[in-house]
Formats: sequence, C-alpha cells, structure tokens
Amino acid sequence: MSRSSRQSQIRGLIKLSKYWNKLINDIEPYVAGEQPKPGQKVIKLNTNENPYPPTPKVKKALDNFDLSDLRLYPDTNSTIVKQAAAKFDGVSEKNIFCGNGSDEVLAIAFQTFFEKKAFTGLPVLMPDYSYSFYPVFSEFYDIRRKTIALKDDFRLDPDDYIGVPNCGIVFANPNAPTSRAVAVSDVEKIAKANPDSVVIVDEAYVAFSEEYESAVSLIGEYKNICVIRTLSKAFSLAGIRLGYAVGNEELIEGLMRARDSFNSYPVDRLAQTVAEAALLDVGYYNETRSKIISTRKWFAKELLDIGFKMPPSSANFVFAKPPMDCGTLYQNLRSKGILVRYFNKPVLKDYLRITIGTDEEMRILLDAIKEEVQNAENS
Amino acid sequence: MSRSSRQSQIRGLIKLSKYWNKLINDIEPYVAGEQPKPGQKVIKLNTNENPYPPTPKVKKALDNFDLSDLRLYPDTNSTIVKQAAAKFDGVSEKNIFCGNGSDEVLAIAFQTFFEKKAFTGLPVLMPDYSYSFYPVFSEFYDIRRKTIALKDDFRLDPDDYIGVPNCGIVFANPNAPTSRAVAVSDVEKIAKANPDSVVIVDEAYVAFSEEYESAVSLIGEYKNICVIRTLSKAFSLAGIRLGYAVGNEELIEGLMRARDSFNSYPVDRLAQTVAEAALLDVGYYNETRSKIISTRKWFAKELLDIGFKMPPSSANFVFAKPPMDCGTLYQNLRSKGILVRYFNKPVLKDYLRITIGTDEEMRILLDAIKEEVQNAENS
Repeated sequence: MSRSSRQSQIRGLIKLSKYWNKLINDIEPYVAGEQPKPGQKVIKLNTNENPYPPTPKVKKALDNFDLSDLRLYPDTNSTIVKQAAAKFDGVSEKNIFCGNGSDEVLAIAFQTFFEKKAFTGLPVLMPDYSYSFYPVFSEFYDIRRKTIALKDDFRLDPDDYIGVPNCGIVFANPNAPTSRAVAVSDVEKIAKANPDSVVIVDEAYVAFSEEYESAVSLIGEYKNICVIRTLSKAFSLAGIRLGYAVGNEELIEGLMRARDSFNSYPVDRLAQTVAEAALLDVGYYNETRSKIISTRKWFAKELLDIGFKMPPSSANFVFAKPPMDCGTLYQNLRSKGILVRYFNKPVLKDYLRITIGTDEEMRILLDAIKEEVQNAENS
Repeated sequence: MSRSSRQSQIRGLIKLSKYWNKLINDIEPYVAGEQPKPGQKVIKLNTNENPYPPTPKVKKALDNFDLSDLRLYPDTNSTIVKQAAAKFDGVSEKNIFCGNGSDEVLAIAFQTFFEKKAFTGLPVLMPDYSYSFYPVFSEFYDIRRKTIALKDDFRLDPDDYIGVPNCGIVFANPNAPTSRAVAVSDVEKIAKANPDSVVIVDEAYVAFSEEYESAVSLIGEYKNICVIRTLSKAFSLAGIRLGYAVGNEELIEGLMRARDSFNSYPVDRLAQTVAEAALLDVGYYNETRSKIISTRKWFAKELLDIGFKMPPSSANFVFAKPPMDCGTLYQNLRSKGILVRYFNKPVLKDYLRITIGTDEEMRILLDAIKEEVQNAENS
C-alpha cells in the first residue's frame, strides 16, 4: 500500500498495474473515516453515526422475518421501504427510489442526471467544501466539475448558483463538514433559476436541523429537484446501508434505468425489513433526534465558552476551530481513545468535525479538550 | 412505461427526458426474471434460486447479532466474510473482494479491468450466448465488445479466444443460460494465451458441476484470472446480495480502488453476519448441492425421454428445447402457475431455461409439460 500511495502523488504518469484501466490507475479514491478494529475501545465521534440504537421495532421485524425467504431474490423495487418512506415524507411511492446506502443513490444520480465530458462542455456545480465524495464521483464518472466557493462564514449563497452554465448542481443541506444549512427558500431559488438541470439536495443531516426544512416539499412544483436521504444517521442504521431519493416520477424512472444496468437487486431482504420498521416508527425517530439536538446545543455552547469558533450547526456534528493547533488536538484526542474527524486540507485543517454522541461521551470529550487547551496555553 | 418502451426502439434518436443524460437515454437496461407479487402462489423456476432454505446456522448467527450495532457503519472490507470465503476457497483473505451481490462485483470488475472506448480500440471478448448483463455492463461503462460465437452444441471453444486482440475476456462457467461448462484446463489455456488481459470467470453455478472444477486453483499461477462467486445460488442466499471475487492481490486492490470511488461500505452488517455463517457450513452446502444435482439428472433424463433436446447441464438449471413450440409451452406453463425463463431472441427462443427445484416441484412441472406436449401432438 505504501508503494501505491507514494505513486499516487504522481498518478496519471505511472501505470500502477497493467491489469487496471486508466480510470482506476488515475483516480484518488474517497477515504472514509477510520473504523476501530473489532474489540478496540474508543469513543467514536468521527463518522457521524448516531449514538443511540435503532428502534426496538427492528428486533420485532427481524423476529417475524422467515429466514427461508433468504433463498429468494429481494423485491427489486424495495416496495415495503418505498411505501414506508412515502408515508414518512408525505409523497407517493412513485416518488421514491431506494439504494444500498445514500452513497450508492448519489452515485446512481450522478450517472443519471449529470452529463459526461464527452458529451458536454458544461460542469456540475458543487460547493468547494462539501461531502468529499462529490468530486470523487465526478472524476469516476468523467463529469466536468466547477466548485463554487462558500462565503467566509461557510454560508452557501444561492445567488452563486444563478447564471452559471451547468449540467447539474449538487450540495448537501445541511452541508458537511461545515454543518451549516440553507433555508428551503434558497433551495427553491436555485432550482427555479436552473430549470433544465437536476439539483441534487443531499439531506443526510436534515433531521438534525431544528426547523426541519426539507426540500421534499418542493418536488411537486420543481420537477428538477432530487432529494437524497439516508437511514444511516437519523434512524441509527448505518449498518444496513439504506438510502433513497425523492423526486418526480421522471427522475425516479431515470434512476431505475441506471440501477437496472448494473445491479437490479441492490437492497437485500433483511435491510428492507429493518428499514421499513425504522421508517414507520416516527415517534422513536423524533425522540432520538431531539436528544441529539439538545446535546449539540449544550456541547456547542461549551466549546464557544472555551474559545472555539464555529458556524451554527444544523447537523449531528459541529465543525469547530479550536483555540490551539488543530492537528495537535486531533492527535492528542486520538491517543486518549477519542476519534474525531480531521481533514488535513487548506482551510478545513483548522477545524475538527465532531460527531454528537451521548451526553456522557461529550462530557468525556469536553474534559479532554479542556485539558488539551489548558496544556497548550501553558506551554 | 409503454411510451418508454416504444421509444426505446428508436433510442438514441429521441430524448426521453431532458433530465436524463445521454447514457441513460440510450441504454437498454437488463430485464431480470419475473418476480411474483407477494402472496402469489406459483412454482418459481425462472431465476435459478435454490429450492432449499439457507443453513440453520444463519438463524443462530442472527440471534447472536447485537442489533444496537446497526447504528455503526459496517466493516468496509467485510473481513469476517473474506476470512470465511478464504477458508472455503483455500486462498488467503488478501485474495478476496466482497460486494453487494455478484452483479455488483462483476460491474466493479468491468470498471476496473476493461478499458473504455475513449482509451482503446480493443474490445472485451464474451460468448454470444451468456449472462445478458455482460453486454449491458459494457454499454453502461462504455467498453467496446466483441461477441464470440459458441459452437452449435453451445460449447465454448478456448481456441476462439486465442489470437484475438482484446482488452479483457469475460465468460460464465458453467455458462448461462446454456448450462454447459468448460474444463479448468480450457480456462487455463485462455488465461495463458492472454497474459496482459484480465480473464473474468463468472462461477455463479460452479457448485452444481459434478466435477466441481473451479478456476480458483489457477489464481496462484495466473495473475490475470479473476473468479467471481455468489452466495445467491449454492448457499441459498439470493436475498442477502453477497458476491465476491477471487484473484491475486493486484486485482483485488484494483477492485477496492473502484469500490472506494462510489460506495465504501457496500455489504451491510446483517448480510456479512449471514454470509459468514453460510460459508462456514460446508456440510450443508454439499448436502443441498448434491440434492439439486441428483434432481437435475433425473429431470433431464425425463425431458430427453419425451423428446426434449439439451446440452449437458453443469448448473442448477437445464436449457432445454421442447418438441413443440417453445413460446406456447412457456405461456401455457405460466398460466398453470409455473414460471420458467424464456428468452424471446434468435436461437434462444427455441429453448426454456428451467431452474431445478425440489423433486416435488419438478414432478408437477413434468406432468404439466407432458400434458402440453401431448396436446400439441394431438392438435
């Protein structure tokens, strides 16, 4: 692996393997947050997982599942999940497309709605600081891209997406890793100004916005809005890989055409069973997201009190700039068994992305941070 | 949908949706075998599913699974599945790559090993009658293809793959829908003659070959052989979507680079748990595949006795030409509640692909077939 990573610095020049094609040779794959080894005891606040278990209804659903049915292919359309998601989002099941995690749904959406370099000179527009999979997707699927700078306070200004020729637009709302959200009226402004482009709104974190402004309310009026959702965060189901798109039927049909070109049955039977149970338990969903929102408010205030700076968070994480060297703090927390996310890139490298865990986890983290900040001041 | 299918006859000329890109507009997606509606009572012999339930060890494994772990992302490398598969296949876990069904693994392999039109004039070679996803993949990933005719008896002749310039080779062994296998020495001949190309050997059905000749035994000597396997058929787990590739480390690393460009965590926690349990129960695996092999032998003989023609089957299905109009037989069986697979295409349209079910299912089917053949003779 070290050979490869050295060589990747001069990628495009060296053929890493004669068996790989040009794309695989040249690409810089996405690097996901560190996962601890099985049995390793850490406080894991680096991949925005939910600290609470999924609804107990999941156990009930699995207990009722007849395991002999596993011999049969799953329902290719994930009908039970579609119905539950449609109910949850107040739309028709014809407006839903399910996939194996929102990463897969996003990947399929890129392949469906954005045009390849070979066929257009137009780029897909995306914020400069956003989910790092977006540039990876655009490279992997050979789509031109143009990054649009966020404002200095990490605010996305909808006017920056108006009058810029494009073959599509993608952003996360709330955005990651910056945690900031834009109002649904701003999403509308962007969609209205770009009627021939699909606007992908990745709402992985929208459940943690207090105002709960989802662009799903716009899909009736704007046929070009494709909202992407996931059960990984708000439903505590990162382990089952279930994401879905919400949009008008024409968009959904396009996604189905793409899916049926490489993996007709992406969502397995157990995942469908679990996802349905979770989506239908809205009470539990509201309970856990409320707990996370109130932990975040308390934790963010504590960080501000000790001199951190951060944009207002609408997500299950904060994006916070410590009053000390950020890389040092990251490493020292790591050696204390606390994992947070650190992006060693311009601008981002001054911030930590800290997932909101339980109150207890955040108290332990806060104590560790205070100690580090104190040490840094004294040295 | 009817509008779309009419238009697809002149695809490439009409823009079906202004929101879809050229690829999605032009492609003809794979059409999977019909799945009955929930609650619909049919004898389902059309998608090569296993008639027996998965090993009881699956239930035990799920009972021991802590559902609160579903809040966490799965192990991206599916380590427990890799280890079990490595043990099953007698290789190292470094030789294994896991994905969300062998369809996904195949799709990733196409994206990794075969070169896009834009970068080469060379085609990928594939048999003319084989898994219909191969041409769909090559179109979807913009790879040139050249189909190589099978012999009149549906035999794949390795000499046809020698001296033909290519950027890769893919075939199924045993082949689908023809059911015929080639010897591992023939696979070796092809790999040896094409040292700079990756040879993908799709072994979805190899467990049902009596000689059990897998090309996995060749991966040490031939760095260009990538064997693809699935738990869908032989392990009765079509419902969980688990496929894997076996090959040398260089090939496996390439597949990981591709996967990490669009979906880092494809195999969910429950699927990993179930897959591990199944792969480790070799006794159960051997028991069910033996039952299917003996049912096939009996059933094939019965069909031959009433005038069917068919190549020798090494799979969990037969590919059989009835002594009457094939489309009529297919439809009449369907109206009796028995689903088999019928491909309305040149040559294939004279054959039915019939999955081997339980003895009882095959007896019911045989009686229905006899009645139809009799009726056809009398009319």
